[in-house]
Amino acid sequence: MSGKHDSASARAAETLRQRILDGVYAPGDRMPSATVIGNEFNIDRGTAARVLAQLRSDGFIITKPRSGSYVRTFEPNLRSFPMRLEVWKEGRAVQGADSGKQTRLIDLTVGETPAGRAVADAFRIEPGSPMIRRARRFSMEDRPVQLADSYYLPEMVRATAIVYTDTGPGGVYARLAEIGHAPARFTERLRARMPLPAETEALELPGGTPVIAITRVAYDGEDRCVEVTEMVLDASAYELEYHATI
Amino acid sequence: MSGKHDSASARAAETLRQRILDGVYAPGDRMPSATVIGNEFNIDRGTAARVLAQLRSDGFIITKPRSGSYVRTFEPNLRSFPMRLEVWKEGRAVQGADSGKQTRLIDLTVGETPAGRAVADAFRIEPGSPMIRRARRFSMEDRPVQLADSYYLPEMVRATAIVYTDTGPGGVYARLAEIGHAPARFTERLRARMPLPAETEALELPGGTPVIAITRVAYDGEDRCVEVTEMVLDASAYELEYHATI
Repeated sequence: MSGKHDSASARAAETLRQRILDGVYAPGDRMPSATVIGNEFNIDRGTAARVLAQLRSDGFIITKPRSGSYVRTFEPNLRSFPMRLEVWKEGRAVQGADSGKQTRLIDLTVGETPAGRAVADAFRIEPGSPMIRRARRFSMEDRPVQLADSYYLPEMVRATAIVYTDTGPGGVYARLAEIGHAPARFTERLRARMPLPAETEALELPGGTPVIAITRVAYDGEDRCVEVTEMVLDASAYELEYHATI
Repeated sequence: MSGKHDSASARAAETLRQRILDGVYAPGDRMPSATVIGNEFNIDRGTAARVLAQLRSDGFIITKPRSGSYVRTFEPNLRSFPMRLEVWKEGRAVQGADSGKQTRLIDLTVGETPAGRAVADAFRIEPGSPMIRRARRFSMEDRPVQLADSYYLPEMVRATAIVYTDTGPGGVYARLAEIGHAPARFTERLRARMPLPAETEALELPGGTPVIAITRVAYDGEDRCVEVTEMVLDASAYELEYHATI
């Protein structure tokens, strides 16, 4: 493509995105066709189709077969921290307590696995030490949106329901409380990046969708690490909220 | 490309990424050449070069002209919340107080602008109402990494140094404190997404680098909104840390 062509196409993409962000094209609206876009921005139909493909892969629009392109109805799940972590005291599990849409557990495996570097560092143990891992996958509106692997010290949790798939009322945190290790403090570290191929597959991510990778560490009242959770979120499905008082 | 070809190339990319994540190829290490990669994964040199280009656009490696590809030395700036917001009480500005590398202000414009939807909602005013905006761009190691636009009510800050480029010791928060509106509580909402073209340009983002968009709202002791800041962070440059006690 010529420089002129590139720039007309970039201008079309930027203008269309801005219209979506400004609500000129509202969620659920049908987008103009490639022909209409081509005429407005003085680009050929094929280039206009590529502009639409870019908007699609950036998550602004969806395409319905034999119908056209529509502005995505963006309703991300709002995930609040620390509020969402308090619910286990009321006998509810943490997942699904988000103030937004219901998250549903679709896969769960519990087993033993060697500690990786981040997990070992948080627990202050040697990498490769055996850990109990609860590996979960969650969906929202029948679409996988989150992977969450939680790690525990075998000597701490071996006699609890944490090693079973069904952890009982209040979930893992209620069980930790029963053995004197109730979570009292949490730290979350997060990064955003493009997904690894295995994450693209597990979360069924369309092209151009980044993920948010969160490592959450839970400490008990004596500042002992009791749980490390590595989460990978479909970034298009979540808005994260954090609160602080100074 | 044939399906077989695609799958060999995807396997090469996944294996190489995993080696970088596992530290088999450590930060700063020279990557194998396209020829060596081609031989190992039984793909042609051109395909191997595209695998390397993908690793580069995903932020795993950098390429030095006439030298080769190297595993990126990843040292993201660690941005802590709420700790970093406390420093203004000691007379320091919030930016640059991150526990990681020094962030440097490279652009600053102060002026009046109409309130957008998110800003108006937080201040509980009409969209389009005039606001004081401080628009800033920050760099880290001579690379632009963050855009931050802060908004204030003109009637609240008109008589303060907040309307000047130099806000004085302790910055904006010290000035807000002096007029009885010291920030007492903060909320941050964040999303990760691909950058808009204007953001790609302002942050000089390479392909395949997402951004983290944060809206931070500051409230005073009487729960009045005193500042809204819209930030856009180069996701490859930041790790965000959040703390909570329950």
